[in-house]
Amino acid sequence: MRNVDEMTITDAVLKRLSGASDERTAEISAALIRHLHAFVREIRPTIEEWEKGIEFLTNTGRMCSSTRQEFVLLSDTLGVSMLVDAINHGVAQGVTESTVLGPFYVEGPPERAQGENISGGLEGEPLIVTGSVRGPDSAPIGGAVVDVWHSDGDGYYDVQQLEHVGGLAMRARFLADGNGAFHFWTIKPAAYPIPHDGPVGAMLEKQGRHPWRPAHIHFMISAPGYQKLVTHVFAEGDKYLDSDVVFGVKDSLIREFVEMPPGPTPDGLVRNSSFFHLHYDFGLHAA
Amino acid sequence: MRNVDEMTITDAVLKRLSGASDERTAEISAALIRHLHAFVREIRPTIEEWEKGIEFLTNTGRMCSSTRQEFVLLSDTLGVSMLVDAINHGVAQGVTESTVLGPFYVEGPPERAQGENISGGLEGEPLIVTGSVRGPDSAPIGGAVVDVWHSDGDGYYDVQQLEHVGGLAMRARFLADGNGAFHFWTIKPAAYPIPHDGPVGAMLEKQGRHPWRPAHIHFMISAPGYQKLVTHVFAEGDKYLDSDVVFGVKDSLIREFVEMPPGPTPDGLVRNSSFFHLHYDFGLHAA
Ligand SMILES: [Fe+2]
Ligand SMILES: [Fe+2]
Repeated sequence: MRNVDEMTITDAVLKRLSGASDERTAEISAALIRHLHAFVREIRPTIEEWEKGIEFLTNTGRMCSSTRQEFVLLSDTLGVSMLVDAINHGVAQGVTESTVLGPFYVEGPPERAQGENISGGLEGEPLIVTGSVRGPDSAPIGGAVVDVWHSDGDGYYDVQQLEHVGGLAMRARFLADGNGAFHFWTIKPAAYPIPHDGPVGAMLEKQGRHPWRPAHIHFMISAPGYQKLVTHVFAEGDKYLDSDVVFGVKDSLIREFVEMPPGPTPDGLVRNSSFFHLHYDFGLHAA
Repeated sequence: MRNVDEMTITDAVLKRLSGASDERTAEISAALIRHLHAFVREIRPTIEEWEKGIEFLTNTGRMCSSTRQEFVLLSDTLGVSMLVDAINHGVAQGVTESTVLGPFYVEGPPERAQGENISGGLEGEPLIVTGSVRGPDSAPIGGAVVDVWHSDGDGYYDVQQLEHVGGLAMRARFLADGNGAFHFWTIKPAAYPIPHDGPVGAMLEKQGRHPWRPAHIHFMISAPGYQKLVTHVFAEGDKYLDSDVVFGVKDSLIREFVEMPPGPTPDGLVRNSSFFHLHYDFGLHAA
């Protein structure tokens, strides 16, 4: 294994895997080495370009913090996240399609009761979200855990403006009732650019791409005996539905945020100003 | 560009590059997307494996500091650095072969005069290094800038033990004299494991690989009108010559560290104890 050259080095590196601790490690490592070398052989980087690549990865790591995951943004914007999603989630009758998790999920969101307002006092256009959780056979799944999170009307999540918001907001955990139903009040989210003041933003700019995502609400829904569903519901008519920077849009996930006049609300109240209503029935895959 | 699936997503991502700022960005980005997607399609990662991949990259970034470049270690151990080296440096008559830069180079090393001892007072086996710098036609290159750096007898570089060493040591910049010659005293370096207390070390362990490099001295040599040479001279007989963790060994770069009895030294002194002598004549490629 001396004197490797452009043609022999890949085999030399692969041979080192003969003592790998398990089959899957060997498989993933070998594929990584082969595809990475093929990439390098194709682009034939100069030393300076290799240095820029190292610098890009280093800066991407440096950008990561408890409230920012730049490598997830990189995976999302290169289409890797949606590819992994597609590999893991086939399309099935009665099962809601999945899409990217995104970088803004917070583990263990605040638990809220049905009908509560989760806007955290932030200003915005009032929105009531109603929905249900069912199995592929349409049977309601009582007690399903429904995590929701979304941006404000300016396109910012709570974790991007913690000083302004004063804590978590526009995110919560609900338990579906005995009919598999849930509902809550919040404010209408807006289209937003993914955080683009870091290395991924610089990459998008060089690639001539905009950083925008169409307006959406995130849902993560789980229940014993069913596969966890990670998805969004997108706002019908949004101008970025056909150019989502992370390739997450599916027609089946688009719904109208219906503008409602002053008067009765879906949860039996009466409002003296207009509001929006979004409804979605989710289907979970049996585990 | 909605409803991407496992088969259509790669084209959807590639289409976004149509407005790239320059041809090379488009070329590198397209190759990255194609090879990265091919890798993912081959290994078919679970969501948990994707998360582990993100975590690995994040931790690799977190490990980087002014004295530690974990992404360079990753590139080195996956054979990417030597592949890039091979792509950029062909073999030519009279020209010394190149090898990896490694993570321990420090920009602007301390300038020293011919014959100085650069060990920084560290204990070890005394070593005199003599050499010359020539063009491919064997003509001496007076004034060539010769940067050298190496480990101590326990395999540690100065930057890995700054508190103990008290500053930079075992690294220096020399100017070749009118005959293209240079010489200096130092201590004999040892084989060493690359820093393996981070993500790359954990990867090597899972891959069943040792982290060792055979003993060597790094050289970076430059002169106006010639291509910069980045290389090592390896110690003949080292047990890791055939299994260098970064694939850097070339036969033409191996020399004996000759043990010399007490008595006259190559620089005209007399020592009353034994020492080692290493000699190498470097050849630079015309620019
Ligand atoms: Fe989002
Ligand atoms: Fe080294």
